[in-house]
Amino acid sequence: MTITRVDVIITCPGRNFVTVKITTKDGLVGYGDATLNGRELAVASYLRDHLAPLLRERDESRIEDIWQYLYRGSYWRRGPVTMAAIAAVDMALWDIKAKRAQMPLYELLGGASRKGVRAYVHASGWDYEALKVAVEGYRTQGFTAVRVQTGVPGLGQIYGIAPAKAGEKYNYEPAKPAVNSLGEPCPVEEEWDSRAYLNFVPEIFDNLRRDFGSSLALLHDAHHRLTPIEAARLGKELEPYDLFWLEDATPGEDQEAFRLIRSHTTTPLATGEVFNTVFDYRTLISERLIDYVRSSVTHAGGITGIKKILSFAEIYGVKSGIHGPTDVSPVGMAAALHLDMTIHNFGIQEFMPHSEETLSVFRTSYTVADGYLHPGDTPGLGVDLDEELAAASPYTPAYLPTNRLEDGTVHDW
Amino acid sequence: MTITRVDVIITCPGRNFVTVKITTKDGLVGYGDATLNGRELAVASYLRDHLAPLLRERDESRIEDIWQYLYRGSYWRRGPVTMAAIAAVDMALWDIKAKRAQMPLYELLGGASRKGVRAYVHASGWDYEALKVAVEGYRTQGFTAVRVQTGVPGLGQIYGIAPAKAGEKYNYEPAKPAVNSLGEPCPVEEEWDSRAYLNFVPEIFDNLRRDFGSSLALLHDAHHRLTPIEAARLGKELEPYDLFWLEDATPGEDQEAFRLIRSHTTTPLATGEVFNTVFDYRTLISERLIDYVRSSVTHAGGITGIKKILSFAEIYGVKSGIHGPTDVSPVGMAAALHLDMTIHNFGIQEFMPHSEETLSVFRTSYTVADGYLHPGDTPGLGVDLDEELAAASPYTPAYLPTNRLEDGTVHDW
Amino acid sequence: MTITRVDVIITCPGRNFVTVKITTKDGLVGYGDATLNGRELAVASYLRDHLAPLLRERDESRIEDIWQYLYRGSYWRRGPVTMAAIAAVDMALWDIKAKRAQMPLYELLGGASRKGVRAYVHASGWDYEALKVAVEGYRTQGFTAVRVQTGVPGLGQIYGIAPAKAGEKYNYEPAKPAVNSLGEPCPVEEEWDSRAYLNFVPEIFDNLRRDFGSSLALLHDAHHRLTPIEAARLGKELEPYDLFWLEDATPGEDQEAFRLIRSHTTTPLATGEVFNTVFDYRTLISERLIDYVRSSVTHAGGITGIKKILSFAEIYGVKSGIHGPTDVSPVGMAAALHLDMTIHNFGIQEFMPHSEETLSVFRTSYTVADGYLHPGDTPGLGVDLDEELAAASPYTPAYLPTNRLEDGTVHDW
Amino acid sequence: MTITRVDVIITCPGRNFVTVKITTKDGLVGYGDATLNGRELAVASYLRDHLAPLLRERDESRIEDIWQYLYRGSYWRRGPVTMAAIAAVDMALWDIKAKRAQMPLYELLGGASRKGVRAYVHASGWDYEALKVAVEGYRTQGFTAVRVQTGVPGLGQIYGIAPAKAGEKYNYEPAKPAVNSLGEPCPVEEEWDSRAYLNFVPEIFDNLRRDFGSSLALLHDAHHRLTPIEAARLGKELEPYDLFWLEDATPGEDQEAFRLIRSHTTTPLATGEVFNTVFDYRTLISERLIDYVRSSVTHAGGITGIKKILSFAEIYGVKSGIHGPTDVSPVGMAAALHLDMTIHNFGIQEFMPHSEETLSVFRTSYTVADGYLHPGDTPGLGVDLDEELAAASPYTPAYLPTNRLEDGTVHDW
Repeated sequence: MTITRVDVIITCPGRNFVTVKITTKDGLVGYGDATLNGRELAVASYLRDHLAPLLRERDESRIEDIWQYLYRGSYWRRGPVTMAAIAAVDMALWDIKAKRAQMPLYELLGGASRKGVRAYVHASGWDYEALKVAVEGYRTQGFTAVRVQTGVPGLGQIYGIAPAKAGEKYNYEPAKPAVNSLGEPCPVEEEWDSRAYLNFVPEIFDNLRRDFGSSLALLHDAHHRLTPIEAARLGKELEPYDLFWLEDATPGEDQEAFRLIRSHTTTPLATGEVFNTVFDYRTLISERLIDYVRSSVTHAGGITGIKKILSFAEIYGVKSGIHGPTDVSPVGMAAALHLDMTIHNFGIQEFMPHSEETLSVFRTSYTVADGYLHPGDTPGLGVDLDEELAAASPYTPAYLPTNRLEDGTVHDW
Repeated sequence: MTITRVDVIITCPGRNFVTVKITTKDGLVGYGDATLNGRELAVASYLRDHLAPLLRERDESRIEDIWQYLYRGSYWRRGPVTMAAIAAVDMALWDIKAKRAQMPLYELLGGASRKGVRAYVHASGWDYEALKVAVEGYRTQGFTAVRVQTGVPGLGQIYGIAPAKAGEKYNYEPAKPAVNSLGEPCPVEEEWDSRAYLNFVPEIFDNLRRDFGSSLALLHDAHHRLTPIEAARLGKELEPYDLFWLEDATPGEDQEAFRLIRSHTTTPLATGEVFNTVFDYRTLISERLIDYVRSSVTHAGGITGIKKILSFAEIYGVKSGIHGPTDVSPVGMAAALHLDMTIHNFGIQEFMPHSEETLSVFRTSYTVADGYLHPGDTPGLGVDLDEELAAASPYTPAYLPTNRLEDGTVHDW
Repeated sequence: MTITRVDVIITCPGRNFVTVKITTKDGLVGYGDATLNGRELAVASYLRDHLAPLLRERDESRIEDIWQYLYRGSYWRRGPVTMAAIAAVDMALWDIKAKRAQMPLYELLGGASRKGVRAYVHASGWDYEALKVAVEGYRTQGFTAVRVQTGVPGLGQIYGIAPAKAGEKYNYEPAKPAVNSLGEPCPVEEEWDSRAYLNFVPEIFDNLRRDFGSSLALLHDAHHRLTPIEAARLGKELEPYDLFWLEDATPGEDQEAFRLIRSHTTTPLATGEVFNTVFDYRTLISERLIDYVRSSVTHAGGITGIKKILSFAEIYGVKSGIHGPTDVSPVGMAAALHLDMTIHNFGIQEFMPHSEETLSVFRTSYTVADGYLHPGDTPGLGVDLDEELAAASPYTPAYLPTNRLEDGTVHDW
Repeated sequence: MTITRVDVIITCPGRNFVTVKITTKDGLVGYGDATLNGRELAVASYLRDHLAPLLRERDESRIEDIWQYLYRGSYWRRGPVTMAAIAAVDMALWDIKAKRAQMPLYELLGGASRKGVRAYVHASGWDYEALKVAVEGYRTQGFTAVRVQTGVPGLGQIYGIAPAKAGEKYNYEPAKPAVNSLGEPCPVEEEWDSRAYLNFVPEIFDNLRRDFGSSLALLHDAHHRLTPIEAARLGKELEPYDLFWLEDATPGEDQEAFRLIRSHTTTPLATGEVFNTVFDYRTLISERLIDYVRSSVTHAGGITGIKKILSFAEIYGVKSGIHGPTDVSPVGMAAALHLDMTIHNFGIQEFMPHSEETLSVFRTSYTVADGYLHPGDTPGLGVDLDEELAAASPYTPAYLPTNRLEDGTVHDW
């Protein structure tokens, strides 16, 4: 069946999302997520101006062929903009394929390999007491795995801390619509001090283990800010606290940096939310330098793209830990859940619930209960988009923060 | 839907085949090929006595889960008997899944990536003149790739030479119902001399290129008989004749042997028809020691199993060359064709047509034309089994040949 | 002398055993063990249907030739079914050879290199107190090496814990004749949680060293359930407790995984009970990633097969630790003891006494005293089979357990 | 001084170009090239929608800081769209810096290291005779290095062959404004056959050396189409013809593939025109798998970005061979020439003259004479943009071609 329409829908129900909508000649509709937080319009242009004309009149069933055609046909391949655009097309085509088969997508990918998708959530607090309250809240809801981040004494704003009061819902959105002196949107500038951080973090975990015992899975994100030897030190110092993983210890593009970390610590390592293709993981996986693959379906070429990464990881015993904050849309999250249900090397799924506002635009079939997510059994991805509501929330420019050291040097955020 | 019956069907319409037939509660039927040439009954026992009880009452849709359950649940994992049994179950489950989706299987695996499946055929002759006639015959039929094997002066019976007269159909079946002095079936014993072979083969290719020009793809199979340094020499000496591949140069279980071959020659290398899991390929693929993966779907754990191998190979630019003589049944061949249609790293497909007798028992939807195969568009694998006709051709013991050197030493066949 | 009969005897005196019995023209009889726990009938078929016809009328004295003939002549070589069948034939031929020489087999293998075979036994308990009682019992009996396994708080049934009461004989048989909803045999499904296990185990060893001092050799089996980095952590955390070995830390087919474990810990490592040929050990031994070879004679191609492995290991200073629970028959155990007596790189021998019921069918000449085993000096292997009693205990289907994580994912058992 | 305006100018004087124009408070203007052939508008959006607001009111003199701010501040870093956008900003800032210093840019980069920039040009022909005429033409003009490409018998349209008649100017633009059945722009689909190519190419070089002797430097581009073993073969077969380099032998994202090529041939290797950061080169350079870095300034992060690559390459004795067809604008070409003048590890510069139409919009100070280019001594980059003329040639959608094998499989173009 041929593709007759390719629409790019940009909406901001609380935060920005870019969605591709593909319509076939017989009226089937598939959705794909192309949201690239803070760089949304470049992806939208890539889709609308460069890919959409290539898709119209093309046979929608040939998913691998279309993936390769877009990947190799771009000539200037790889990178977040290109791969998010391809991802969106790929998700939409799998959505259509599964709807045509009258099956939830996970059935086409090999069927359920587990009863549900274990999720980890984000707990944060400016100090340990606030963090403790947040962790307790999640435990009450049945979650068994929590990513914990706290403020660092002497540092101001920091990655991953929701400004919410105790007991309020975690609702961290780093990309803020701040403005510069001209009234234009611009990134917040945060500051960073690795030594202050390294000297403070172990105490937090010591407190957590004291208060929550050994069974709770604790995750932590260093957000690309350490040098390899600093990361090695942190991993080693956190060994007594049995981390589920230490994430993004060093800047991701430098795969070989993990050799040094890995030689010093048995703390499990995760990375890859900024990765786009299997080549970003080649050394990391083939040398077993990491334990979890953190790409999102949205930024790694869609179902077809991330499956190539996860199949490669499986050979080396490396597991999935798919990226899942609200910077992927409910469509991207649904795609993750269908994959999570079926691959053998599933590890854990990141979960940060979308706002009610977002979920009124994107109506999802997936559910959450007792610390588990389930994609649901609606044919396809199980997400519908209310285009009228979407149109009512137009794009609002927003940037992810940036980071500087005390002396003003740009640092990885 | 649950599985209600698991039948193991052994039949010999010209040659032996073992087929698993899985029936679901709502009456869908899937077929899988478990044929292990010369060791058929051990696989049939594995299926009937050990796996069938595990499958009844199980949810047929959970293919990956069942694969892992059978693979890891065997404890004593790997090997041809185990993996052929698992392969048959896996193929049958994919057959059912695609029938339920009302799609040919290749649609579920990602859709068509090409218009058809390029095949290579087997040409042979005791001398060059006979070989030439055979090659000419295939060219007339439109085939563009031919595996060529000839006799070697001074050696008697040899692998891969069909005893047919010039112009007759190639109908090579190495597993023959020979008998020993007690009237029991036993393997033919052939003899081997690597130096005679090495000194003779280049001349054959010189003749072939002279008579057929440069465009015809020529393949050759050394059938595990050379040492690494002999294989290196052969690869180097054949470089002027532009082989599509040199196959099974050395015994397959010794992956590292290919390092030596590879360091000496740019002749493309293929191996793996006796391999069963991705671990048999780990060094070969990750060090790029081969160019083509030669496993069959039947002996490498089915669609699920061989996809793990081929996905791994794709990362390293290694292509498929799926095993396809008549020792896989039409069910196993159909599974190969559905995969061939969809994976990006398709290389070529081996094709040796089944006899009319075989095809009267196994009714296939796949077609051959102009050197290409096509799996057809019947939902599922597209193969039906006539159980009555199958029952009329009972199992007939037959063995693959064995090999000895002139002094009587056992050699790889 | 030619072989005139090849019988395959399946019996269940407490548990299933498959035995090959080879009879020569002059009436000598040899026995070989082909027991593959939970997959017995596939091996029996392999022997009866595919190998027996090849052996009749063949010269029984040509053991190496027959081994190569069966190994290379199978074409589809390797794997547990194939190698257990070949192993049984090989053991029976060595039994005959030694009987013909009127010598215990160890004499033909090079003669005694030690006064006896140091054994380790299995102690277990749901908690430390029960384990302690079990260990004390073995100490009293004179054993100097004990494999210790305990339950893990929060987990139910677990590998290696005999359900016996304190003071009773350890009699652990994981393959249980459970039944599914159709009344058919099926595997027990156990559950697993690596983090719970890792957090609990070190305390057990701390207790053991406190209570039993430093001289007792302590072994532990992780039974293929950890990831490499988890195994690395465990090895590191157990270093203060001086393990004799940590066994099967990760799934065995992934040899390269041991590189990561090995880089983090000096705890000695053992693996291989599921291995069948030297190729399963090639990376492990040549890179010195393990310290002990754990294959059984029964699953690794017999005396001839395992000697190839152990000779290779000797070059790299890797020692033997032959597999020896009751899932190898007394025939297989006798074969191990004869080898243990003679090879230089002997390490230790696993020992789990067969039941009285088993020993009434298999009458053995080997003895146990003061923590040592001795094969005895009866010509041959020193095991006789009472065929009448054997026939009185017919095959009873039983499966090894399988494992799932809490979310339902299949895990290695 | 602060930046007051950031304009993005899209124009199509014969072909599409994207240019960033940065204006400072005191009226200095800098230009940067952001042209990404076939994906222009996505880069334009990236610049206009996402980067421009970050630049206004920022201090234009802090080039390294701005580069890091844009690179690390994008969070989703790397890839052609991101890095072309950053490149354009970086070039414009260097243009301003040099204008402020009243110096040609090469003076600020360390001053001239050579009298001029040796260039290689593109000669092509459907057959050898046409190629020969083209090469002769360049020799007459004084060029000493020529990239030669020809048609391949049996293949139609092929990369790198200008359709010009003998004697006409080479004017190859692969991105053509073709249209699909809906009248929309779409890529041309070419076809490819590696064996036909490999069997034909050596003869061309044999002819070239016969007709042009040994002093002329010959370059050749395989344009990502070979497998590593095919590339190894080609490199080996071309050794007698003393290539200056063999370019883009295999798909660029797979750095390790070059290990295999490198082990078989001493033909110098070049790659990288599709690379964007130093990480794309890390294995290639640190293992000395290539001899020339082929990135453009435009696609590799500008002056600041490509200098990081070239400084790394210098350590390993790898030289520059900066990309320079007309798909970089005269601004991007000028940036290359300023770098070429000053770095020590200069190798050669690709040169394909822009059309008169292009050069009427972009007025350049660089010159060409006797096979050498010179950036000229105008302060800054030495390129002015006629905005009125630019506006008169609006963007015209065009795509680079794609490639398929004979069976329809997508292949690298």
